[in-house]
Amino acid sequence: MSKPKVGLVGGGSWATAIAKMLCKNHETIHWWVRNEYTKEYILKHKHNPNYLTAVAFSPTQLLLTTDINELVENSDWIIMATPSIHLEACLENLTTSIENKLIVSAIKGIVPGHLKIVGEYLHDEFQMNYENFGVISGPCHAEEVALERLSYLTIAAQDKKKAKLVADGLACSFIKTTVSEDIFGTEYAAVLKNIYAIAAGIAHGLGYGDNFQAVLMSNATREMNRITQHISPIKRDVKESAYLGDLLVTGYSNFSRNRMFGNMIGKGYTVKSAILEMNMVAEGYYATQSVYQLKKILEVKAPILAAVYKTLYAGKEPKKVFARLANKLN
Amino acid sequence: MSKPKVGLVGGGSWATAIAKMLCKNHETIHWWVRNEYTKEYILKHKHNPNYLTAVAFSPTQLLLTTDINELVENSDWIIMATPSIHLEACLENLTTSIENKLIVSAIKGIVPGHLKIVGEYLHDEFQMNYENFGVISGPCHAEEVALERLSYLTIAAQDKKKAKLVADGLACSFIKTTVSEDIFGTEYAAVLKNIYAIAAGIAHGLGYGDNFQAVLMSNATREMNRITQHISPIKRDVKESAYLGDLLVTGYSNFSRNRMFGNMIGKGYTVKSAILEMNMVAEGYYATQSVYQLKKILEVKAPILAAVYKTLYAGKEPKKVFARLANKLN
Repeated sequence: MSKPKVGLVGGGSWATAIAKMLCKNHETIHWWVRNEYTKEYILKHKHNPNYLTAVAFSPTQLLLTTDINELVENSDWIIMATPSIHLEACLENLTTSIENKLIVSAIKGIVPGHLKIVGEYLHDEFQMNYENFGVISGPCHAEEVALERLSYLTIAAQDKKKAKLVADGLACSFIKTTVSEDIFGTEYAAVLKNIYAIAAGIAHGLGYGDNFQAVLMSNATREMNRITQHISPIKRDVKESAYLGDLLVTGYSNFSRNRMFGNMIGKGYTVKSAILEMNMVAEGYYATQSVYQLKKILEVKAPILAAVYKTLYAGKEPKKVFARLANKLN
Repeated sequence: MSKPKVGLVGGGSWATAIAKMLCKNHETIHWWVRNEYTKEYILKHKHNPNYLTAVAFSPTQLLLTTDINELVENSDWIIMATPSIHLEACLENLTTSIENKLIVSAIKGIVPGHLKIVGEYLHDEFQMNYENFGVISGPCHAEEVALERLSYLTIAAQDKKKAKLVADGLACSFIKTTVSEDIFGTEYAAVLKNIYAIAAGIAHGLGYGDNFQAVLMSNATREMNRITQHISPIKRDVKESAYLGDLLVTGYSNFSRNRMFGNMIGKGYTVKSAILEMNMVAEGYYATQSVYQLKKILEVKAPILAAVYKTLYAGKEPKKVFARLANKLN
């Protein structure tokens, strides 16, 4: 039996980091990028033009394409790694069936306009069976993968064999992998942690210190636990790396775009100017609105989510919102 | 009924931060410091000569003494805030009974030579009843209290009324308090978090990045849970601020002496030279040996504790120890 062929969708920093891992374990990888310029640039210069430019590729390993149907046809399992806001556009021309493919989401966000995590979106819009679905979760900043700093990934899939296939495809000297069965909790936690990282950034920008930050993250962990248990009530230890670890790396790291975005808001930038100032998408910004609008979330006590929403979308003054939030934490 | 009289024992930065809080809620406080020089200095210059020198006191509020018996006699409740290695010397002349006093430990360490947390030590050596005992726990760096940055304290006592008395004595515009009943878990968690902060520092010094750090802290939270549940199996949520929050503030903050100490070890300092280089006691250094020698701990899976012990006390190379530890984390 020949080795299952892997495809990768996306040209950002996380996709580029994943390409680096995949190249350690596969003779060739299929890789979809958005435009011909990026494709040609990578082939000619052996690195991504815009993201993780220090990561060098062997062009002979890369079967690059800008045709999503070609990518899907040629791959047995496919890692989706676009920002969530670009997913819909990326798949709009997809006519090839994904029914018999293993689809793995490395996207941390909610699909805008659908109020759905990626798994739910693919299930509803592309008839994807949940048994053919996997989720890749950190704690894992792409920048540190580029530097080959030891990192851990959790791969969730209902079918453990499929989780193992993905885990083996990514593991290498600087990547350790764990498998899990929690496809819904892992995706929601990955979405929520971006929102909590924005909260951490806002608090920092407002002048709150390390003591407060620790309390905020402790409360965020419990809030994440309440929300994931409410959405998918299975046996789950939110203290594991895919949940708590992912929250911490995003909430505490200087590499975090979400934390940086929150910090600007806390320092007094308007939402609009903070978005303009940043050159990358802060997933948490979109996620905040989407998650906050989910009816099932409203049943859960989620003061941090509410505080970020009020700050970003309801025009409330961050200082006042966070002073009120502080009274609800313990 | 007159307000219970409060006494404070210790002259370091944490004791000074607590004195600041107590002065917000009490007309006068009894305060024991080690020597006449410190006592006279504080009265004359209105601040501690060595620690948190920016914190100003009104000398009329301070009933300073260097006589531990005088302090105990004059106080209804007493906060112990010396470093754990000085506790025994501090109490060696104590002849006054503490039987009817409420004793509150703000010490995060194990009493050397006794292999006991402070509560157990006072219980065994000074006939202190556990009903008259309380524990103050962070996340709370003294330095941020000095800056009046919003911080949260948890006060644990078997008797909730006593916990409330302490909580009310400390709460002020920049200190929020919660009460709990978990005197053993809170003390052990406070001890363990210093050891995990040393681990975080060693990892950082060795060149591990944010991704690894998040995994380490996630594993440390689970290890802390296993140990506290083993030692005192009560209903306890280790995700609460007194446990997880305290771990995070110590593991991630630049104010943390334990993290700094670990960082030096990771960077190649010998234990001896790191100790000499630092001007403050890294509680976790002593705690590591003490905790590791506790028989009851040995029954628990505690790879991070073991790795720190091997690095600090068994002369093992940190690089090798942490490479092996990395294989045990997930």
